[in-house]
This record gives sequence, structure tokens and C-alpha cells, in this order.
Amino acid sequence: MAEREISQAVISRLPRYFRYLGELRDREVERISSQELSRLMHVTASQIRQDFNHFGGFGQQGYGYNVEYLYQEISKILGLDKTHHLIIIGAGNLGQALANYMNFQRRGFIFTGIFDINPALFDRQIRGIRVRPMEEMTDFIRQNNVDIAVLTIPKSEAVAVARKLTDVGIKAIWNFAHVDLDVPEEVQVENVHLSDSLMRLSYLIGRYESRQE
Amino acid sequence: MAEREISQAVISRLPRYFRYLGELRDREVERISSQELSRLMHVTASQIRQDFNHFGGFGQQGYGYNVEYLYQEISKILGLDKTHHLIIIGAGNLGQALANYMNFQRRGFIFTGIFDINPALFDRQIRGIRVRPMEEMTDFIRQNNVDIAVLTIPKSEAVAVARKLTDVGIKAIWNFAHVDLDVPEEVQVENVHLSDSLMRLSYLIGRYESRQE
Repeated sequence: MAEREISQAVISRLPRYFRYLGELRDREVERISSQELSRLMHVTASQIRQDFNHFGGFGQQGYGYNVEYLYQEISKILGLDKTHHLIIIGAGNLGQALANYMNFQRRGFIFTGIFDINPALFDRQIRGIRVRPMEEMTDFIRQNNVDIAVLTIPKSEAVAVARKLTDVGIKAIWNFAHVDLDVPEEVQVENVHLSDSLMRLSYLIGRYESRQE
Repeated sequence: MAEREISQAVISRLPRYFRYLGELRDREVERISSQELSRLMHVTASQIRQDFNHFGGFGQQGYGYNVEYLYQEISKILGLDKTHHLIIIGAGNLGQALANYMNFQRRGFIFTGIFDINPALFDRQIRGIRVRPMEEMTDFIRQNNVDIAVLTIPKSEAVAVARKLTDVGIKAIWNFAHVDLDVPEEVQVENVHLSDSLMRLSYLIGRYESRQE
């Protein structure tokens, strides 16, 4: 299967292509060459052509890419033509921020439930959905066909919760806890380690300053 | 300067090394071999040795790494031995979540100010710091020696705000807006594109399912 060989780096770039193509589409641009896309996205045209070749090319030589077609194809590759039911574990600020991020809904990620251990939150409603106690999580996943769990809880609890999610057959975990989860290969994990990101920024500041000296 | 050649991939891995070394240090582990670190982190021992070689090695052959020394060295490389003053632009859920994330403070990132365009938020206090109107941002940066601005505002506003930040001489932008910022090379940018991350997760679900068919 050709798809097996697609590197993490190519996969990482796909959402960015999708975003730029979405903007071109909104501006009613019909065609774009790899050179134009290259200028817009600050990546080389050859990189773009190589990336697209992993998925069969999409393009007509010398004629450019059809924006709508490319947008729809990448959308399918990313699985955005399907609907995913998503729950959020942890109803703190970050959990609420993610629940309120309407853009996800537009892409087929349906916010279905939110859970916390803090009883003070149980009568709260977030986007019309009430915060449920953690004890109800497992049954809720079974009954509501939930695919994705978003972890916005401290790392001390994340490992145990990830185990429960695995046992109940969750397909994917979007992990904001500051810990790497050890789950079997049938559970897909995407980490958002905010501290790591801030440290990279700190590194870049220092590197720039040392070059100026 | 050797540091110029360090790839983005190595830089991306440094915070993760730092995190694992911090945990080893908390458990009072004094020495660790690249093999042990490899098992713990699920990367190859040769990758670890290669990565560390970019920074002069750190290790004694056959004797393992001194955890405390390695932790301190990576901390310095990441610039965590310095203090950074940080402001947050956008006092919504995400801005508040980041302001409340105490871990940043511990690493030398001092939360100094938070700004919004919504007057309803102006009397609110977040971690003892009141939300200020956007108009005060530029003067505040000048007067408070601010290094880092965190953008948690919609993409429609992010580009204009980034321009103002550049003009006032900000060193770095931690960008949560769903847009790539076009800033001069003296401004360091680290993007956290949450939608991109969720799309990668969606791709991984689809890929796993297509392999099972």
C-alpha cells in the first residue's frame, strides 16, 4: 500500500495546503500553478510537486492545479468528508476554549460531550452541552459512538484516563496533557505539548540573539 | 557558527529530552545511558547520540549521561536560564487558559499583561493582572520590557496586530491564530495551529482504518 510510505513530514504539511487552498477557494481563484502556490506558502515549488505526487499528483503539467478539485481531494485524504464525534475530558479554561472553537464543527468534528471531576462544574452548560461527571465517560462513549477524546487534564491523571479510553475502544486521542501516552497502535494520538512549543520559541530567541553578537 | 546548522527537527526534539530528563531528575536518577533513554522515549539510541552531538555530546562513552548536567545544559540551550516577559493578546478562554498555566512561570516565562478589545473584560483580573484595552498594548510593551506576545485572537485581526508588535520591536510571537504571519527575520514565530493538529488526527484515523480493510 503506497500510503504506508508517506512520511510524518508530508502528513504534517497537508493541513497547511488545505488551509491555503481554502482561502484561494474563498477568493474564487480557480487555478493555481505550483510556482504561485510556492510564493504564497513560502515553500519550494518542487516540494509542493513532490508532496502532491504522494497522492497521485493532482495536477496537469503546465496548466496548474484546479483549486476546487485539489481542495476536495485533500479534504478527503484528511478524512474531513467524514463526521467525527468528539468529547472533551477536562472542563477548565482550555477544555472550554476548545469546546467553543466553532471551526471544528465546520470540519465535521461534532462536539458531543464534556467531562470533569469537579462537581462545581456539573450544572454548567458549554455550547448547550452540560458538563458530566467523569464516572459517566465510559458509558457515554459506548452509547454515543464517540471517536475522539480530547485530553485537557493534568498529566498525573492523563495516563489513567488514556487507559480507560483505550479499553472502551476510542479511535483517537487529542492530547494536551504534558505527557507522552503509551497506547496500543489502534489508538491514534496527536499531541499538543504547549510547553514544548514555548521552549522552542525561547530557543529561537536565544539563537537569533547569539547570531547578532 | 555550528549552531546555524541545527535542523528544525533537532530543535523540535530538545524540549522533549528536557521533559524526560526533568522527570528522571525528579525521581533522583543520576545517570542514564543512551540505550535506557532510548527505551524510555521510544527513539533510537543512535538518534539520541546524534542529536546530542550537535551540542557537543554531553556524554561519556560507556558511562552514560549525567542527568543533572544534561538537564542543565539543555535548559541553557533552550534559553530557560533567562527570564522572558510575556503578554497575551486576547482574553478569551484560550488566553485565560494560557495565563493560568502555572508551569510557564516556573520556566522563566513571566506573565506580565493581557489585552482585549472587549470592554466587558476590562475590570477582570487574571492571575492578579487586569485585562487592559488593546490601545495600551504598544506603550505597555515599551515600558515593561516585553519579549514575547501570545496571539489568541481571530486570524482577521492577527495580521494587523503582528505588524504593530513588529513595529514596537517584540522579539517573539507565540501564534495561536489560524494564519501564517509574515514578519521580518528578527521576530521569532512559533505557531500552534490547533485545526491543523486536529486534521492530522483525522488523517491518522482514516489511514489506520484503511489498513484494516
